[in-house]
Formats: sequence, structure tokens, C-alpha cells
Amino acid sequence: MTHLAPIDFWFSIGSLYTYLSVMRIDRIEELDGVAFRWRPFNVRAIMAEMDNRPASKPVKAAYLWRDLERRASKQHVDFNGRPPYPLKEFDLANRIAVVAADEGWCDDYARATYARWFGLNEEAGSEPNVSNSLREIGQDPARALALAQSDAVGRAYDAATDEARGLGIFGAPTFAVNGELFWGDDRLEDAVRWLKAGTLKRR
Amino acid sequence: MTHLAPIDFWFSIGSLYTYLSVMRIDRIEELDGVAFRWRPFNVRAIMAEMDNRPASKPVKAAYLWRDLERRASKQHVDFNGRPPYPLKEFDLANRIAVVAADEGWCDDYARATYARWFGLNEEAGSEPNVSNSLREIGQDPARALALAQSDAVGRAYDAATDEARGLGIFGAPTFAVNGELFWGDDRLEDAVRWLKAGTLKRR
Repeated sequence: MTHLAPIDFWFSIGSLYTYLSVMRIDRIEELDGVAFRWRPFNVRAIMAEMDNRPASKPVKAAYLWRDLERRASKQHVDFNGRPPYPLKEFDLANRIAVVAADEGWCDDYARATYARWFGLNEEAGSEPNVSNSLREIGQDPARALALAQSDAVGRAYDAATDEARGLGIFGAPTFAVNGELFWGDDRLEDAVRWLKAGTLKRR
Repeated sequence: MTHLAPIDFWFSIGSLYTYLSVMRIDRIEELDGVAFRWRPFNVRAIMAEMDNRPASKPVKAAYLWRDLERRASKQHVDFNGRPPYPLKEFDLANRIAVVAADEGWCDDYARATYARWFGLNEEAGSEPNVSNSLREIGQDPARALALAQSDAVGRAYDAATDEARGLGIFGAPTFAVNGELFWGDDRLEDAVRWLKAGTLKRR
């Protein structure tokens, strides 16, 4: 499909702005001829280490929700009001993503779980979202959950988070392209441009 | 020049991303047929109240500088490395802006002081930046400084900051359009679109 290296898409299920990227990344792949590698990690752990709790102030939180809604409409992504937030089962949601990335169905899982979370107010990482999402994409919930809760997947999740930390990643989503980081759904087009041109400058 | 209401451009001299807006806002006005009202305020006071110090973590600060550099190149704005930061004389820089906005030369002042700060490493708010910038735009430094240090201008600066706080503004630059806030230079085009269409949605 493309001769370009894939863009690393570092994300956590549970990040609000990651919703926008998850729901449009397939369009970007098709239109721009680029590919993304799904890299789930624990953004919460890194933000806690940095004492970064961006949505903890009511004034800023109100802005972020409004911004999210406006940008969803801009990008033709559905937004039906605020879903439950923050996630109670953040780690489980992301350990399933680790399994999914390993087995090659992370795009389907992320879209399914985010669509239910934002569209139906079914909280990602919790039931019934988890089982519904997995069944919907042809995965056996019992098998996927057993794997997600295994020590091996726990270690892979921690290793991915260590790798993200080592790259200087501090928020989600982050797009990593040839050593450059682009933080935020609103930098997705810049990441694609960087991959293709090695610069953001328009000539 | 335009039949549309002006967009309120809330900014503080000393905000890094405000540099990008200040240096391209005249192009936006000309190309898009919109006007901006220059609204200097004390973003530092509001951020301190919210315990918000975004560039205090080295990893995030490194990212922000790199992002600023890349976006400057994207927008054809000069970037010659990191200027002195943060400003020692933040309040004076902005009190001059209050005088300038009142007298109608704020665009010239902001461009002149930012160009010297980022281009020549002359710190905004301090000498020789202040006198050089004022002379360059045909203003008498002694007169402008005396006004900037007056109680009346101090009260106007505080009142503007109160107004910003009341609108829910928590960072700079912020563009305010018909009750909607757009935070960040990267939302400037969205603010223009909102003014013209009342939505970000592409039809």
C-alpha cells in the first residue's frame, strides 16, 4: 500500500483526544497513502510521574470538552455529549490493546471500544463495553481477557511505556516519525507531512 | 475592510506561542478579510492561580520548543533558536501593550518587540528591547513608559485580566469569537472559520 515507513501512533485507550485520531486514522491512511503502527502505552503512569493532570481544573476541563466537540464536528467524527471519564479500568482497556496490537487487530478494537464509549456511554475497559467490542470484531472475550491479564502482557505494557518514556513522550496521542514527536490529534497532519517531506515548511 | 465583528485576540507579551500569532495575524487579516482586537492581559496571574506551569517539566519544555520551531517554519515565521525565557519584566511588557492597544498601535508594538526578542535575543519588557521597539514604530519611549507605569494603566491591565478570567480564559493566545474560545495559535484558523460560519464543520 505504501513505500513509506509507518508512523508510530502512541496512544492510550482513555485519552479523550485519542478518540479523534482513532476514528479518522483509517481515512488518513487511505487518503494519504501512509500507514500507522498502533502502540498502546500507559500515558497515565507518565503523566503522574510528571505531576501533569491537565483536565483537573474546571475551567480548563470545560474548554477541553468544548474543543473536543468542535473538533469532532470539524473531522466528521460523532460526538454525543461527554462520555464517562476518567476510565475506572484504564489498564485493562490498554492491556487488551497490547494483545490486539500483537495479534494485528488493534485498529478494530480501538475503533469498537471508542465508538461504544463515546457513542453509547459504555465505559471502555469495563463491561459491557469490553465483551461487546470484542465480539463485534470477531474476538473471543474470554480468550482476549485471559491474555490481557497475563504477566507476559503486563510486562509488554510496561516495556511499551518505558519505550515511550525513553522517546520523550508525555501525552497521548503522540505520533513518532523519524525521531520527531507530534503530540495531539491536531498534529496528525503535521506528522504525515513530516514523513513525506521531512519538514513542515510549504515551499 | 470587513463587515464582520472583530475577533478578540487575548495575548500576553511573554507567551511563546503568541509569537506565532503576532507575526502572522496581519496576513490572516488581509487574506481572510477579518479583523482582530488586541487584548493584552496577564496570563501569568491566571496560570499561577490555576497552578498551571506548562513548561516547567524538562521533557515537555523540550517538546514545546521543538514544536514552536517546526510550526514557525510551517508558517514562514523566523525562528533563530531559543530566546531568553521567561521574561523578567513581563508586566512592564504588557502594560506597554495596554497603552498601545488604547492608542491604536498595539499591532506595531507587539510585532516590533517580539521580532527583537525572538530575532535578536533582546528580551521583551527589558532594555534595549523596549526603547528600540518603541522608537522603531515612532513612539517616544519616555512618554510610553511613563504611561505604562501609571496607576490608571495598572488598573486597566488588572481589569483586562479580570475580564479574561471571567470569560474562562486560562492561556495565551486565546481567540474569542461570539462566546467561543479558541486557545492556542494552532486554533487561529478555527476562530476565523467560526466567525464566518458559526461552525467548524466542513459541509
